[in-house]
Amino acid sequence: MKTLKAKSDKGGVSSKGTEPRDAAANKTPQEPVLVRKTAETGTRPVRVGDVLVGAGELVVVAGPCSVESRSQLLEVAHALSEAGVQVLRGGAFKPRTSPYSFQGLGIKGLEALREAGNTYDMPVVSEVMDQEQLNNAMIYLDMLQIGARNMFNYPLLKEAGRAGLPVLLKRGLMATIKELLWAAEYIILEGNSQVILCERGIRTFETSTRNTLDISAVPVIKSQTGLPVCVDPSHAAGHRDLVAPLARAAAAAGAHAIMLEVHPDPDKALSDGHQSLTVKQAVSLIKELARISKAVSEVRDEKPG
Amino acid sequence: MKTLKAKSDKGGVSSKGTEPRDAAANKTPQEPVLVRKTAETGTRPVRVGDVLVGAGELVVVAGPCSVESRSQLLEVAHALSEAGVQVLRGGAFKPRTSPYSFQGLGIKGLEALREAGNTYDMPVVSEVMDQEQLNNAMIYLDMLQIGARNMFNYPLLKEAGRAGLPVLLKRGLMATIKELLWAAEYIILEGNSQVILCERGIRTFETSTRNTLDISAVPVIKSQTGLPVCVDPSHAAGHRDLVAPLARAAAAAGAHAIMLEVHPDPDKALSDGHQSLTVKQAVSLIKELARISKAVSEVRDEKPG
Amino acid sequence: MKTLKAKSDKGGVSSKGTEPRDAAANKTPQEPVLVRKTAETGTRPVRVGDVLVGAGELVVVAGPCSVESRSQLLEVAHALSEAGVQVLRGGAFKPRTSPYSFQGLGIKGLEALREAGNTYDMPVVSEVMDQEQLNNAMIYLDMLQIGARNMFNYPLLKEAGRAGLPVLLKRGLMATIKELLWAAEYIILEGNSQVILCERGIRTFETSTRNTLDISAVPVIKSQTGLPVCVDPSHAAGHRDLVAPLARAAAAAGAHAIMLEVHPDPDKALSDGHQSLTVKQAVSLIKELARISKAVSEVRDEKPG
Amino acid sequence: MKTLKAKSDKGGVSSKGTEPRDAAANKTPQEPVLVRKTAETGTRPVRVGDVLVGAGELVVVAGPCSVESRSQLLEVAHALSEAGVQVLRGGAFKPRTSPYSFQGLGIKGLEALREAGNTYDMPVVSEVMDQEQLNNAMIYLDMLQIGARNMFNYPLLKEAGRAGLPVLLKRGLMATIKELLWAAEYIILEGNSQVILCERGIRTFETSTRNTLDISAVPVIKSQTGLPVCVDPSHAAGHRDLVAPLARAAAAAGAHAIMLEVHPDPDKALSDGHQSLTVKQAVSLIKELARISKAVSEVRDEKPG
Repeated sequence: MKTLKAKSDKGGVSSKGTEPRDAAANKTPQEPVLVRKTAETGTRPVRVGDVLVGAGELVVVAGPCSVESRSQLLEVAHALSEAGVQVLRGGAFKPRTSPYSFQGLGIKGLEALREAGNTYDMPVVSEVMDQEQLNNAMIYLDMLQIGARNMFNYPLLKEAGRAGLPVLLKRGLMATIKELLWAAEYIILEGNSQVILCERGIRTFETSTRNTLDISAVPVIKSQTGLPVCVDPSHAAGHRDLVAPLARAAAAAGAHAIMLEVHPDPDKALSDGHQSLTVKQAVSLIKELARISKAVSEVRDEKPG
Repeated sequence: MKTLKAKSDKGGVSSKGTEPRDAAANKTPQEPVLVRKTAETGTRPVRVGDVLVGAGELVVVAGPCSVESRSQLLEVAHALSEAGVQVLRGGAFKPRTSPYSFQGLGIKGLEALREAGNTYDMPVVSEVMDQEQLNNAMIYLDMLQIGARNMFNYPLLKEAGRAGLPVLLKRGLMATIKELLWAAEYIILEGNSQVILCERGIRTFETSTRNTLDISAVPVIKSQTGLPVCVDPSHAAGHRDLVAPLARAAAAAGAHAIMLEVHPDPDKALSDGHQSLTVKQAVSLIKELARISKAVSEVRDEKPG
Repeated sequence: MKTLKAKSDKGGVSSKGTEPRDAAANKTPQEPVLVRKTAETGTRPVRVGDVLVGAGELVVVAGPCSVESRSQLLEVAHALSEAGVQVLRGGAFKPRTSPYSFQGLGIKGLEALREAGNTYDMPVVSEVMDQEQLNNAMIYLDMLQIGARNMFNYPLLKEAGRAGLPVLLKRGLMATIKELLWAAEYIILEGNSQVILCERGIRTFETSTRNTLDISAVPVIKSQTGLPVCVDPSHAAGHRDLVAPLARAAAAAGAHAIMLEVHPDPDKALSDGHQSLTVKQAVSLIKELARISKAVSEVRDEKPG
Repeated sequence: MKTLKAKSDKGGVSSKGTEPRDAAANKTPQEPVLVRKTAETGTRPVRVGDVLVGAGELVVVAGPCSVESRSQLLEVAHALSEAGVQVLRGGAFKPRTSPYSFQGLGIKGLEALREAGNTYDMPVVSEVMDQEQLNNAMIYLDMLQIGARNMFNYPLLKEAGRAGLPVLLKRGLMATIKELLWAAEYIILEGNSQVILCERGIRTFETSTRNTLDISAVPVIKSQTGLPVCVDPSHAAGHRDLVAPLARAAAAAGAHAIMLEVHPDPDKALSDGHQSLTVKQAVSLIKELARISKAVSEVRDEKPG
């Protein structure tokens, strides 16, 4: 039901005033301020449920692209939990290019995520696209995801900043790294500093992959901010066979977390089946990532370069 | 004030069902359906106030990037009205990369737009970024604008589809033309077929312009859809001196409308001053566009190619 | 036959010395110097045979993608000459992605071009890719073309600079405008200032066109250099139906020349048939371009903006 | 000295005939044929001097961007040799955006490379840009490099195919992976199957890195061809501090070789100093790469995915 009566004026500067600030640009920050790394702190870990992201150990976030049913999710969650996955993901509200594509189970999906998370003792994360979805999601989730298509959705960023949950913020398909930092600044400025940045591939002319994973984003973000960095090789690659080498690369480049799409029967998935790993592939990959991560962490100088 | 009680489930297919459709992909459209041109109709004009866009005559939409004050807007609107501009634009809710930049006057800006529109008998258009802004804007505007950053904001597209106003839908910086058509399909599927598509530049490696105006989008969109096409050379160019040649190109390529940023004193603008025309430049350009448009329309074969 | 004996040392700075110059970067130009526009001269026209490019009137360069036979070329040249085309183009040495594709007729193609040019009194232009081709081409052509794939081929640029013919230099698919100016600087530094720059589309993520015509390149190049600007809408579009609207846009944006691929029977062309106009389409388009060009030139202020 | 007499006709199909082949497209390959992997062979190692690339062990190719002097090169080569670098690189003919930049020492540079290679028992590789440079290089080098700017230089590819040396073929900034394979096909079709493909970053909108390293190219190329894959993180990154994490990522993604720019005093380098590692950094990185490479190779399933 729409209300045509004017509600609060959401113009003005970040809910904090109405005076134009560009005119006084010399007083306003020209670079993101709050996301910056300080010499003392380095990376500031983000707590998702009981899991710390950015604290040293590589964290694996995994689950199906979409929650398709309670039983599907419980099956995957069980296997992933056994394999050592720390955080469970699954889409309930799905942004889809076509309005005729499966749009997600909505709240039923969130309920299933919560149940699976409780059953297997894993914090759960899922994407929200507007305030109403966010309000619902707050009840069920341990972390909110803002997807690539909404990285420039400033009202949503502000809402996420006012929510009490950590936020996994994905880089837009054509967003510069600096714009990603500015988007995080929107969230943090509202009082929520629990933000994880996620590289998931950018759009280029290359057609053999769905997107081009910008692996450089990992060291660039680490050198500039104190926020943990996640890599999503599944969306970047768009093909199951490329996920493992890209995940290995992300671990070696120094990512704090890796997010994988896993499906019990990828060829029957309602979305993104071609880029989903089987459970068996995921289990094998997770072991490899631990080994690579260990090899990298044994390197003395942990700073980029 | 946030409500943590679960409201309506917005999952399911486009508010019309909850059954996953991907599984039955052979029953669902693989291409946008509702935006398609029919052999009989060609371009279907969209009525904005009393102005028809797509009916033959080139329509000029102009105004300041941001509404900065009532007096600024009335001054510009007066001059543009005299110059033959048919539709008045002005930003009230501004999407800005930095949260510290001027975010627009909000409802005060909408009020000023309405007053200027009434005074000079011009329909008015402005951007909205979420449902609350949209609800407010419905009271004041003749056309809603969905900006480039929100072209993939599906909840907003659906809301715009349920609103009773025409929609100016801008192409995302990273969006293919096909994705732009899918975004329009989201709006039309909700019952609103009054959609104008707007090319405003895409992101490439070139750095001498803010974006790269994809002039090919004009004939491509015209060949595939019945929706009118607008071109925004101001955002594409990012430099005042490039706006006129790009606007001329757009008119020659067959655009139905051209949208220009105009400011009484660009160097003092609170946003995008470097790409705003002065009133004098705009008046001169509008005359040229009429002449080019006439030269093109005298061409016998009006079809692309 | 290869010669393994070391010949001249082609290192050093532009054949003019061997002392490294980067070390003395403060003495060397940081921007292209020779291509720059001077306040007095504006655009410096380039003479191709008896045709002046950049002198005011829009010049049309047209012909088949490849010279396929003497009779094909003479047939097209006759029709184009009747339609007012000033310069004849045709590929003799064809750069092709696949080594199995038709690679051009070579010197036979150059001979046919010369004959057609002489018969219909049109200067002729064709692409060369290395020094040997260039040496042969010097005998037959009025202008050398350096294609998009060779814009960064510095030895070839230098050779073209030492040749006595005007050069049509195409922008690389992923070259910035500034790099295009630097490439022209290579030619001019060798003593040949007869250079025409050609925008032919850049590579982006968009897939509905072969490349994305960067129409902004026209005013950007005109504002920065004194070299004439040509636009090739055929390679940019990749589809016959898009060529006319893009050519119209180029004329309106202020291009000095437009290059069109025309074939007597495009569906049977040995290369690029899908983007070639029929002779009839070309004749019709050339009339339109004259009309648009006239409308634009009647505009008082000829400077960009 | 230029020869204006027509020499051999280099048109026709790959020096092997003059009959157009497009017309008989159904008889010609639509995909690269010779680069393809066969089920039996997998990767076919390439021998560079005494070093096998693609045979299992990660090969490090390193050296200065440009050979600046005999003493500079000997100093670097000594240190790199001690650190276990297998192949020495160094530019003698430098492709530079500006004709005013240092263009390389030419043959003197090749001589220094040969001496350093002999002294420290390392095969040497350097870039050539035209046939004359190639002829000279044949005397001194163990491997020819064709640079990114010349990946579409078909005459040069053919010459390299006729030379008796292995070729390191770099991907163009604008080239799809498929086009890179086609470029290799040009070389192999002339009888030289000793080709190593090198990913060195592609051009995108991102500005925090010089180019965007397309790490996916490693598994994509490995899945499609039998040619070894090299990664050049120095040119991709453009900043010294990013080279190590990108090199680690390349090793983890399965690259057969990694090419590093190393300079004894990067801040005084005549070219690309900002992206050159110090000798100390290089030595440290090479140890890490060995460790990561070992961790990856212990993974059972060596196939991508």
